[in-house]
Amino acid sequence: MILETIQTPADLRSLSAAELQLLCGEIRAFLVENVARSGGHLASNLGAVELTVAIHRVYDTSRDRLLFDVGHQCYTHKLLTGRRDGFRDFRELGGMAGFPKPAESAHDAFVAGHASDSISVALGMARARTALGGDYDVLAVIGDGALNGGMALEGLSDAGRSGEPLVIVLNDNGMSIDRGVGGIAKMLDNMRTKPEYINFKRWYRSVFSERIPFLYRATHRLKHWIKERVLQENIFDDLGFEYLGPIDGHDIAKVEKALRWAREQGRPCLVHVITQKGRGYVPAEQHPERFHGVGAFDPADGTPLKTGADFSAVFGQTLTELGAEDRRVTAITAGMAEGTGLLRFQKEFPDRFFDVGIAEEHAAAMAGGMAAQGLIPVFAVYSTFLQRSYDMLLHDISLLGLHAVFAVDRAGIVGKDGQTHQGTFDAAFLATVPGMTVYAPSSFAELGSMLRRAVLETTGPAAVRYPRGGEGAYTADNAEAPAVTLREGSDLTLVSYGWEINPVLEAAELLAAEGVSAAVVKLNRIAPLNISEVIASVRKTGRILVAEDVCRAGSVGERLLAALTEQGETPKAARLRNAGDGVLPNGAPEDLRRAIGLDAAGIARAAKELLHG
Amino acid sequence: MILETIQTPADLRSLSAAELQLLCGEIRAFLVENVARSGGHLASNLGAVELTVAIHRVYDTSRDRLLFDVGHQCYTHKLLTGRRDGFRDFRELGGMAGFPKPAESAHDAFVAGHASDSISVALGMARARTALGGDYDVLAVIGDGALNGGMALEGLSDAGRSGEPLVIVLNDNGMSIDRGVGGIAKMLDNMRTKPEYINFKRWYRSVFSERIPFLYRATHRLKHWIKERVLQENIFDDLGFEYLGPIDGHDIAKVEKALRWAREQGRPCLVHVITQKGRGYVPAEQHPERFHGVGAFDPADGTPLKTGADFSAVFGQTLTELGAEDRRVTAITAGMAEGTGLLRFQKEFPDRFFDVGIAEEHAAAMAGGMAAQGLIPVFAVYSTFLQRSYDMLLHDISLLGLHAVFAVDRAGIVGKDGQTHQGTFDAAFLATVPGMTVYAPSSFAELGSMLRRAVLETTGPAAVRYPRGGEGAYTADNAEAPAVTLREGSDLTLVSYGWEINPVLEAAELLAAEGVSAAVVKLNRIAPLNISEVIASVRKTGRILVAEDVCRAGSVGERLLAALTEQGETPKAARLRNAGDGVLPNGAPEDLRRAIGLDAAGIARAAKELLHG
Repeated sequence: MILETIQTPADLRSLSAAELQLLCGEIRAFLVENVARSGGHLASNLGAVELTVAIHRVYDTSRDRLLFDVGHQCYTHKLLTGRRDGFRDFRELGGMAGFPKPAESAHDAFVAGHASDSISVALGMARARTALGGDYDVLAVIGDGALNGGMALEGLSDAGRSGEPLVIVLNDNGMSIDRGVGGIAKMLDNMRTKPEYINFKRWYRSVFSERIPFLYRATHRLKHWIKERVLQENIFDDLGFEYLGPIDGHDIAKVEKALRWAREQGRPCLVHVITQKGRGYVPAEQHPERFHGVGAFDPADGTPLKTGADFSAVFGQTLTELGAEDRRVTAITAGMAEGTGLLRFQKEFPDRFFDVGIAEEHAAAMAGGMAAQGLIPVFAVYSTFLQRSYDMLLHDISLLGLHAVFAVDRAGIVGKDGQTHQGTFDAAFLATVPGMTVYAPSSFAELGSMLRRAVLETTGPAAVRYPRGGEGAYTADNAEAPAVTLREGSDLTLVSYGWEINPVLEAAELLAAEGVSAAVVKLNRIAPLNISEVIASVRKTGRILVAEDVCRAGSVGERLLAALTEQGETPKAARLRNAGDGVLPNGAPEDLRRAIGLDAAGIARAAKELLHG
Repeated sequence: MILETIQTPADLRSLSAAELQLLCGEIRAFLVENVARSGGHLASNLGAVELTVAIHRVYDTSRDRLLFDVGHQCYTHKLLTGRRDGFRDFRELGGMAGFPKPAESAHDAFVAGHASDSISVALGMARARTALGGDYDVLAVIGDGALNGGMALEGLSDAGRSGEPLVIVLNDNGMSIDRGVGGIAKMLDNMRTKPEYINFKRWYRSVFSERIPFLYRATHRLKHWIKERVLQENIFDDLGFEYLGPIDGHDIAKVEKALRWAREQGRPCLVHVITQKGRGYVPAEQHPERFHGVGAFDPADGTPLKTGADFSAVFGQTLTELGAEDRRVTAITAGMAEGTGLLRFQKEFPDRFFDVGIAEEHAAAMAGGMAAQGLIPVFAVYSTFLQRSYDMLLHDISLLGLHAVFAVDRAGIVGKDGQTHQGTFDAAFLATVPGMTVYAPSSFAELGSMLRRAVLETTGPAAVRYPRGGEGAYTADNAEAPAVTLREGSDLTLVSYGWEINPVLEAAELLAAEGVSAAVVKLNRIAPLNISEVIASVRKTGRILVAEDVCRAGSVGERLLAALTEQGETPKAARLRNAGDGVLPNGAPEDLRRAIGLDAAGIARAAKELLHG
């Protein structure tokens, strides 16, 4: 095994072309074997093996700053930078993260879990280097999907004009997470299919620039004329980049040559490499979207080990029903048709399905336009990515009281994807949006009821937030009222909502076994808050504990305690249990809940402290 | 006066070219006279007079959907759609808004106060029209500055690919709010200076498309070849738009012709018009940036009627001092160098000043890259626009605990710019950002001290939030501790921060005159909260009233009451006074404070209710 001989990236530099080829095969086998066991991102990593090897042969990432965009394609990078053992407890609590993490390694220059920021971060680093006289190179690897994101275009615009030396590697696999969409994707498609132009341009550049540089400079005006009239310039040239490509991203020698060329330019360069998502593993080559983010699977044929129902699927099913009932219902996704469960809706109602690519700002503002003209848009989006739309929720939806619906998937503790993906902020920021109704189902049945209510019976903006994965022991539908008392009790009142109701109900059982009588109030709607059910219970028990898997600031617990206190319904004792003021790392959701005391035992413990402390 | 004969936009259609020219002069005189009195946006409106007249001659905006991007250039539109009288109490409480507002008129299709959303909204409306079989045209007017915003590019990408009939008018005055920056601006610059190309293209189109359409279709491949090899296509063509321009935006007949052509295309079209900001009023032509948003001025020469110091100027002064002391200090603005007070810093340290154009996402992520490599970036931004950076605060700054500083200008009640510009959300959303320290100065002196502390003495992300305008009666510097008791008292504790401390101190005086002894605790740091000073006071008084000019959800008051209750320091009575769950309209800040009970009288009244109710 060559892979075992690679302790640091420097070890790559002495390998022959044949050895590099073998190494890439070993890396692919390693990735498939490990991801099949741990789950994670596969297709994007298989596509970036040669590219990553080439980068490490050209750059010293302990010094040079390598930025991944989104970062789920960083596995080969981790493998080559001394973290092979990290794949043993990969993505578990306390284990190696699935995304770049500077705390893990000097080779990780920055975090990267949300798309489209790498050019901006790279430019910031390049400007810091210039301002402080640093001696390092900066390069960013961005996928074609992430390039559709507005921030990437903002970054290109500023970087191109800046003249700062930096290299952007466009890792173009012709698709973002699902299929590439939008004009940007179309533009890239045009570039990919014009090798004859590229060849001409390369010839022109080599003749004029390399062989007769004097003439190259002297004929500046001629060059300009040729550029404008003969050469088809693309958006990258227009924005001020030196463009090189497209290049076969699986040809290490070619990629290396391009990177070395780009590094020498001393100005913003874009190297366009074409890669194949899922490369080298047939199931992933055939269905790259299914192997984007995966759970454990059988490496022999790629079959998922378990395929239980999940909230995303229930959402997709319900929305399809609503779409059949009401032709105003439209679905929007930002490059996540599969992840959000919208494939069925897409198939049934292609004219009312809109995948805008990675563009959460646009998705939300467009929903505003749709709602203003009579549609009922439903934007299905992961909680963590909805952070991108915060301003549009306020400006383009709320100000006009528009009836747009936000299906907030992966809300609360998300788990193994870790710190960049936890959905722990939406409960707070959604509550600040004037007129926003926020539903929090705890079961599949409640998701169905609440989505129906949000779409057909709610006025103004509405959100339904639901967790990643499947339901727990609680499978009932108590969605009728804003809040419901699931269990009467006399010693204290436990308040919760969403998935967290499962450990809370279990905690009430644990407490009952110890002679403590805990009432359980479940909130179905967390904004606006209706506290009458809580007041009724707290009047009996005098004590309240609110458990929720979101950040403390702006939490339901804080808003609830403030409302109780202001209304003179002050409990004798109160405790808030939540995800705190920090960020949760990667780990299985049950491990994370245990670690922060949001599992049944932790809640029971807190309840007893509340009673006796 | 022709202007007085215009009751509805339809009245424009019978006017001759000569009358239209006279009318435009009258409109300019009206705008200068009225804005000189009321304050508002001037330069952009003077530039868009002919464009707006032309639009109203071609479209029926009671039915067709006209979207302004940013919307501060909508004055002529308001004037021509039956709202001339609205300029009497323009931007006052209860008066006409300075931005488009559907509640005011059927001619206002959408809100518009934040930049770069119009293409997205237009596409949403066009898609709603298609889905529901509506019969109306959709057009958006977007400035060149707003086009730099990522969402605009996301919108262009999706709209170009969609094929939906819609018209984007690029109102290009060669500058955004300050000077155009970035690659997008450069690209537009190239387009503007290539009339010969445009003429050729127009000739080609007219010959092949209009005169010999059969050949035009038949020669599709030839056309394609010519497009790629002979014609220099621009980004709009690349993204799937029919592009027409550049056109003189002050020539009504030409603009009309272009709009009619675009409407007939039945697909996405972009009409590029060149206008002059400030046109027709010499002071605004010479200094368009000064006449972007203005207070009252002398129309004879444009001199501002009052030029008191304001928080923005103090910020700029202090940051320039810090820049001189520490070469790591850099300043970032998103197209607002003048508004945020950064002109002096820009002049003194041009190499450490970065205007990224309208691109708040990029600005914040770039700050992350800078901070990671040793700079101390200070992003000066209006509170309402920082909403755009929320995800970057979490992902690109907070996750790595980076020391980037956010100078949050126009925080709290902003006043006459109205609902799209109120800075009432930052106190809540900044508090959710892990590790973020938020300072809230109440005086110029405190802004100086706190900015210094935020830049040089704080670790991790920090924000300093300060109001629009000047300081009040409170001019002291008590910034040393996280909180300070400004006044002892025995009956109740008033808690506040920022500018709101002025009416709170005044309320304490009013109460004292009525025999009520109110303590006043001023918070200097609102995140993380340090509540020991509040606890000490509430233990004495037993009652607390928190007054703040931000939204209720996630407010300091909510967080404070929750913390007190959880720690068993429950007050006997508590009351939160804030900007509530809605959005504040336009109006003078003092009028808005009075309307929502955040003036001295309102606070005193609430305090008495708290004591006796």
